[in-house]
Amino acid sequence: MSFTERCDWLRLARTPRIGPVGFARLLARFGTAEAALDALPGLARTRGAPRPDIPPRTAAEAELDAIDRAGVRLLASCEPGYPHALACIPAAPPVILVKGQLELATKPCCAMVGARNASAAGLRFARELAHGLGSAGVTLVSGLARGIDGAAHTGSLETGTIAVLAGGLDYIYPPEHYELHHAISERGLLVSEMPLGSLPTARDFPRRNRLISGLSTGVLVIEAAVKSGSLITARFAAEQGREVMAVPGSPLDPRARGANQLLRDGAHLIESVEDVLAILENTPAIRAETPPAANGLEDDTLDFIEWPGLDSADEAPAQPAPPEQARPAERIKALLSPVPISADELSRQADLPVGEVRAIVLELEMAGEIDLLPGGLVQMSGSS
Amino acid sequence: MSFTERCDWLRLARTPRIGPVGFARLLARFGTAEAALDALPGLARTRGAPRPDIPPRTAAEAELDAIDRAGVRLLASCEPGYPHALACIPAAPPVILVKGQLELATKPCCAMVGARNASAAGLRFARELAHGLGSAGVTLVSGLARGIDGAAHTGSLETGTIAVLAGGLDYIYPPEHYELHHAISERGLLVSEMPLGSLPTARDFPRRNRLISGLSTGVLVIEAAVKSGSLITARFAAEQGREVMAVPGSPLDPRARGANQLLRDGAHLIESVEDVLAILENTPAIRAETPPAANGLEDDTLDFIEWPGLDSADEAPAQPAPPEQARPAERIKALLSPVPISADELSRQADLPVGEVRAIVLELEMAGEIDLLPGGLVQMSGSS
Repeated sequence: MSFTERCDWLRLARTPRIGPVGFARLLARFGTAEAALDALPGLARTRGAPRPDIPPRTAAEAELDAIDRAGVRLLASCEPGYPHALACIPAAPPVILVKGQLELATKPCCAMVGARNASAAGLRFARELAHGLGSAGVTLVSGLARGIDGAAHTGSLETGTIAVLAGGLDYIYPPEHYELHHAISERGLLVSEMPLGSLPTARDFPRRNRLISGLSTGVLVIEAAVKSGSLITARFAAEQGREVMAVPGSPLDPRARGANQLLRDGAHLIESVEDVLAILENTPAIRAETPPAANGLEDDTLDFIEWPGLDSADEAPAQPAPPEQARPAERIKALLSPVPISADELSRQADLPVGEVRAIVLELEMAGEIDLLPGGLVQMSGSS
Repeated sequence: MSFTERCDWLRLARTPRIGPVGFARLLARFGTAEAALDALPGLARTRGAPRPDIPPRTAAEAELDAIDRAGVRLLASCEPGYPHALACIPAAPPVILVKGQLELATKPCCAMVGARNASAAGLRFARELAHGLGSAGVTLVSGLARGIDGAAHTGSLETGTIAVLAGGLDYIYPPEHYELHHAISERGLLVSEMPLGSLPTARDFPRRNRLISGLSTGVLVIEAAVKSGSLITARFAAEQGREVMAVPGSPLDPRARGANQLLRDGAHLIESVEDVLAILENTPAIRAETPPAANGLEDDTLDFIEWPGLDSADEAPAQPAPPEQARPAERIKALLSPVPISADELSRQADLPVGEVRAIVLELEMAGEIDLLPGGLVQMSGSS
């Protein structure tokens, strides 16, 4: 990839309202990032959307320069070093920044996520499990949060650990993980899709979670509440075709609710290192799925699919579409009521692929507009 | 049923080495208990078995008299008051003794079993769950053991509880359940297939467990070790086509191993009264299964099937059968090695119905002759 090509990828990736799905669609339609950048203003004009705020080439050059100076590496999703498992997910980030030992991502990876307010026993269990998995050659992936995440990284620091951050690689959060962050940047691997210097906002955390599962063969949940980032990560894992694993807990422990819920829904029950290894060893190699219809990569009707794309569903289009072409998210919302309904039923009623419905449902839940219920049922927000 | 018929049923049922399966076979072959009693000595002679030790009619009369005096009721499996769910199991006892409120067995029944050395939290959870289920109209069934059993009975004493005893109804065990035993005999229901005055032996407890599951729509396991009577009850439930439910626990709690194992094997995960009710409500009405081949009820080759029947597999026949007609239990044992093997594979290799293999395997495990491994695999005892 030439420096110019790299600049163009970065400019397109950093253009506001162009998310990973929009990026992939534009690249599929126009062939190169350069051609997509050229076409964008006209495309927006045609659709009555505001003029896209494409970063100037100087900004991309400055970012690449800062990345170099920070000892960080930028990887485009088409490049060989980009982690294979991550490249296989539907909304793979077009560029990621990494710092540390990139080869850790080529080993079998297992995510371990859970409660920030984990119990002492849960923290010890997570640390020991991470250590055992690491000793067996597995790279641990987590989110560097307090609690289970920190325990997972600590337990696998010697053997191989990947921390995926919601903000820039140089933004250390929580502050008490300063030393852990630093250690992982040297002996482990830090990964982020955000530019250096980015402060994460609330919505960046759930989006980041798709990368934790996306890097991994499976996601193991320990001590998670029912409404938690850990369960969002588990849901991403299921969407991405990755294994979902959970450590059971007593119904008397509220921290066990989320993991027990996953077990009800069919997650593998995990009690030991051996349990996890058995799952990972029996999982076929990760490969790119046929791009789901929601991606629109094979879709000739790009003009129909709403600008700026599914992954920015929270930004309304400049002009409301006519009712028969209502945005998918709006069509889903219109179908919801206080009576819980399944994604399959929504898919039938909205005449949308179920994969697209699930993606929309996730976005809407993150935006607080709907409630996800046990069993994958969906209802209007605040109905229960 | 006339008094004479009742005496004959009791005499046949109390004949040593005639178990429930043998009883059913004899009744199917000879039509009445009287005819079976008449035929037994000749049948044994033909087969070179020792003369059957049929209790005299005076003994049966004396037992019926003692039963009356104790305020106990004898129910034959062909009588209307005999619990329907119990009558549907393959090895239903030909006669049971009951004391208390028999109508409790006509309500939806749920068994709750677990560790004798349960944790305080587990005991409270069991008591509250039993109380909640009772308030919802469910009769609780358990074994009056220390720990979870006692908590289940205590929690459901007001609403309806059935204790199934391994010994006679008048044998109180453990001693600290003296008052509970007494209270259940009045407000609940005591059930046993043993005569009054029987002291239970170690092998009576696992056999009793088939009645706990047999009386119930489902069995809920709380805090059970992997090798425990509770798991035997759960296995009987699965064999009898009843629901198996388990309360998850932390891998750090050894008391959770058995329940977690059941969850791995597909048991319903239970965290609340509502979870249990949802299972029970969605279970179709219990009906008698087509008698499995192991019962031999439809089998014309009665002479081939070893006297005294499957349910006394631990007593060797008087004369060893020729190799090609080796007793099923011996054929199974001969097939075992330190390499674990499934019941299906044993069924194929021994050319026996898988239901019969499972029954034999259970008997052999109870006798300590084989080891049952996770996943239903079987191996020679002491191999691992």
